[in-house]
Amino acid sequence: MTDPRLQRLAAALPGLRLLTDANDLEHYGRDWTRHWTPAPLAIALPGSVEEVQAIVRWANDEGVAIVPSGGRTGLSGGAVAANGELVLSLQRMNRELAFDATDRTLTVQAGMPLQALHEAAKAHGLVYPVDFASRGSCSIGGNVATNAGGIRVIRYGNTREWIAGLKVVAGNGELMELNRALVKNSSGYDLRHLMVASEGTLGVVVEVTVRLTSPPPPTRTMLLGLPTFDALMQVFAELRSRLRLEAFEFFTDRALHHVVAHGASQPLDGRHPYYVVAEFADQGEADEVAVLSAFEHCVGQGWVDDGVIAQSEAQAAQIWWLREGITESMAHLASYKNDVSVRVSAMPAFLAESIALFEREYPEFDVVWFGHIGDGNLHITIVKPEAMAKDAFMTECARVTELLAATLQRHGGSISAEHGIGLVKKPYLSSTRNVAEIAAMRGIKQALDPKGILNPGKVFDA
Amino acid sequence: MTDPRLQRLAAALPGLRLLTDANDLEHYGRDWTRHWTPAPLAIALPGSVEEVQAIVRWANDEGVAIVPSGGRTGLSGGAVAANGELVLSLQRMNRELAFDATDRTLTVQAGMPLQALHEAAKAHGLVYPVDFASRGSCSIGGNVATNAGGIRVIRYGNTREWIAGLKVVAGNGELMELNRALVKNSSGYDLRHLMVASEGTLGVVVEVTVRLTSPPPPTRTMLLGLPTFDALMQVFAELRSRLRLEAFEFFTDRALHHVVAHGASQPLDGRHPYYVVAEFADQGEADEVAVLSAFEHCVGQGWVDDGVIAQSEAQAAQIWWLREGITESMAHLASYKNDVSVRVSAMPAFLAESIALFEREYPEFDVVWFGHIGDGNLHITIVKPEAMAKDAFMTECARVTELLAATLQRHGGSISAEHGIGLVKKPYLSSTRNVAEIAAMRGIKQALDPKGILNPGKVFDA
Repeated sequence: MTDPRLQRLAAALPGLRLLTDANDLEHYGRDWTRHWTPAPLAIALPGSVEEVQAIVRWANDEGVAIVPSGGRTGLSGGAVAANGELVLSLQRMNRELAFDATDRTLTVQAGMPLQALHEAAKAHGLVYPVDFASRGSCSIGGNVATNAGGIRVIRYGNTREWIAGLKVVAGNGELMELNRALVKNSSGYDLRHLMVASEGTLGVVVEVTVRLTSPPPPTRTMLLGLPTFDALMQVFAELRSRLRLEAFEFFTDRALHHVVAHGASQPLDGRHPYYVVAEFADQGEADEVAVLSAFEHCVGQGWVDDGVIAQSEAQAAQIWWLREGITESMAHLASYKNDVSVRVSAMPAFLAESIALFEREYPEFDVVWFGHIGDGNLHITIVKPEAMAKDAFMTECARVTELLAATLQRHGGSISAEHGIGLVKKPYLSSTRNVAEIAAMRGIKQALDPKGILNPGKVFDA
Repeated sequence: MTDPRLQRLAAALPGLRLLTDANDLEHYGRDWTRHWTPAPLAIALPGSVEEVQAIVRWANDEGVAIVPSGGRTGLSGGAVAANGELVLSLQRMNRELAFDATDRTLTVQAGMPLQALHEAAKAHGLVYPVDFASRGSCSIGGNVATNAGGIRVIRYGNTREWIAGLKVVAGNGELMELNRALVKNSSGYDLRHLMVASEGTLGVVVEVTVRLTSPPPPTRTMLLGLPTFDALMQVFAELRSRLRLEAFEFFTDRALHHVVAHGASQPLDGRHPYYVVAEFADQGEADEVAVLSAFEHCVGQGWVDDGVIAQSEAQAAQIWWLREGITESMAHLASYKNDVSVRVSAMPAFLAESIALFEREYPEFDVVWFGHIGDGNLHITIVKPEAMAKDAFMTECARVTELLAATLQRHGGSISAEHGIGLVKKPYLSSTRNVAEIAAMRGIKQALDPKGILNPGKVFDA
């Protein structure tokens, strides 16, 4: 620890855990993107709000940039530290702080992993319903930073909808206690909502109070094989009107190929261009009759070629893994990820144009489509051909993302549905936000972080 | 129209409707508060987004302040123009613009009254579920400006939860299209949520896209008479756990006194310290059994002294009027209104302290309590004694509100649950928002409205 700035930090906070080993710098300096070479100054692992405040004050004094860091499962480079930043990891601040049965709220430190939050809610007989595949590694603070969505948005909404209060260390080290779990609070600007999805550029989230809800009814899981995307939209409309849908996810045959290659078993006879995993409430005979009748209707219309309803929890887990395992099954492959959204009503036209775009521009590439139809959210993962150099691949992806962004803009969509802008999508922000909005965002950043020490260079250049 | 600034405005926008008659200045210069003397420069009634943009640009050039104006039903002075401002009324911009059945969204101009929005939703077979007594006069743009709550928050949340997109004219006249009805959109700061509850100080909302939902199940309405507030909290917990509550409102005997004096008929035999209006789903025999069983349990516990379940829509409307008519029945009286909230769990302790405070400080005053228990929201209206001069009364109210704000602060509450801060609650903002938060709010205001032309002096002094 020869850097005089770090020495002054250590002197000011003798109890602070600071890491500077090369392995630690690499481990904490990057997220699930692999494009940037980690190069942080050091890693700080504070144990208290006061330590976080002191670190932020130090960063202001020294002019050192801070990268707030949760589980670093992000896919947009929002938690990458490649420019001598101090990584401020909330990893040690992972405890439950308070539960209130009347308010149905749970307050935890921001570093608590999502799965631990699920378990804590369950221990109180309730549910925190936001969920997605990286639950074991991601943290609730990181979920707040990107307004994480996931597989049950169709039923429960995004992270934002469940945030009753946030404690945030502001850019000057002051502590803000935003909304304090009030149901109704019209007392000036809602800075809580401003912090959600701000990707660590406006403050460091240190405590999160989430609302909980009653456990959902028993559910059943269904896998369907479909011939076309139009059929898929029809099935979505039909199931949404007939059943209480808890999830409605889709993927293509190419996505299935990767999960099966990674060890999953082929779920249906034959192969189908599109697959759907649907989860619906099943509270007894009436629901089961409704499900069978909806299924038969969809088959009769030619929208569904084959399907299976899970008969056990194990089978439901197998079906879910076909969808949730996609990203993990492709983790060993170099790839470029798009995470876009349009209004649900714009989905068919947007998808048709996008498929045509990718077929024209990437005829030889492996392009994997999956996502959340009910939310208008598509994930598009492009696999780097083995023979192609990494830089050439990235150049190629940038070129096509430009075209995709233009398509999105025509359809009123967003270049980031749930992964955030970070570094990866920064060049395309203007496809989604107009000049006036980006100017307003810059002004807000300048007002709340005048020295530009909070995750600089992410989302936009200040 | 001798003011040269107005002459330049009229010259720049020959089609703009401008009013300068004394009656119009008075009518459009105030809201439902009566403390300030209206003194606007003029009233502009634009008919298009382009006219609103031109007015904002003119205001920047001339250094004229603008007061965005909806139905002016506000109770905090947020729409008062008492300092030579131009009132920018959205009254003529009140049309439906678009409906999408797949997205279940309805886009309207900001000046559409809430009741017209309800009717438009109904015409599409759906429901916009935010509702309150001023529905006939207030506008959806004004609802957005204060994040209006109302009588169904317990079931459906506040206005904020239903806003899928906003078109906003920024402080420099540029148009921002915020969120554009996307379900998932993590592309930088959510300026839509920043605009909600900003009371016209950050932009002029010109178009609103709301989400709609399915019509609720048939409901029944119940009126209960209760002996104590503790009993009321018990009844709330019991009914919430046993029934699907759509509303749970309370008022005191003093509130009932005013509504009955205004023409409503005495609803129950005898008088009771507290009354509850509850609305719950009633889809048939099982629900009715559950209701009767819950009611009998509450009576058996001594929590409920008397009650009635409406047997017709007319009777339900009569019961609702006992609650919704309170503000109207007191409109002819000079009064001071508090609209405070705490977490629901903090309600009993806060209420006990507040009642003690008012009994100590206002032993001779008529203090009327009512509100939304399930949201932690209390309305406290203090009637001016006839013999007291208006200024002395306001001084007295300010003194006691100071004490109430201190009580709220101890309980982590808010000085404004749903009415907004405006002018009336501005002196007490620091009871709810700390120094760092108010500084952040000032910085945001400065960034988005550098010339300070948007509703200056409201919420805080910039």
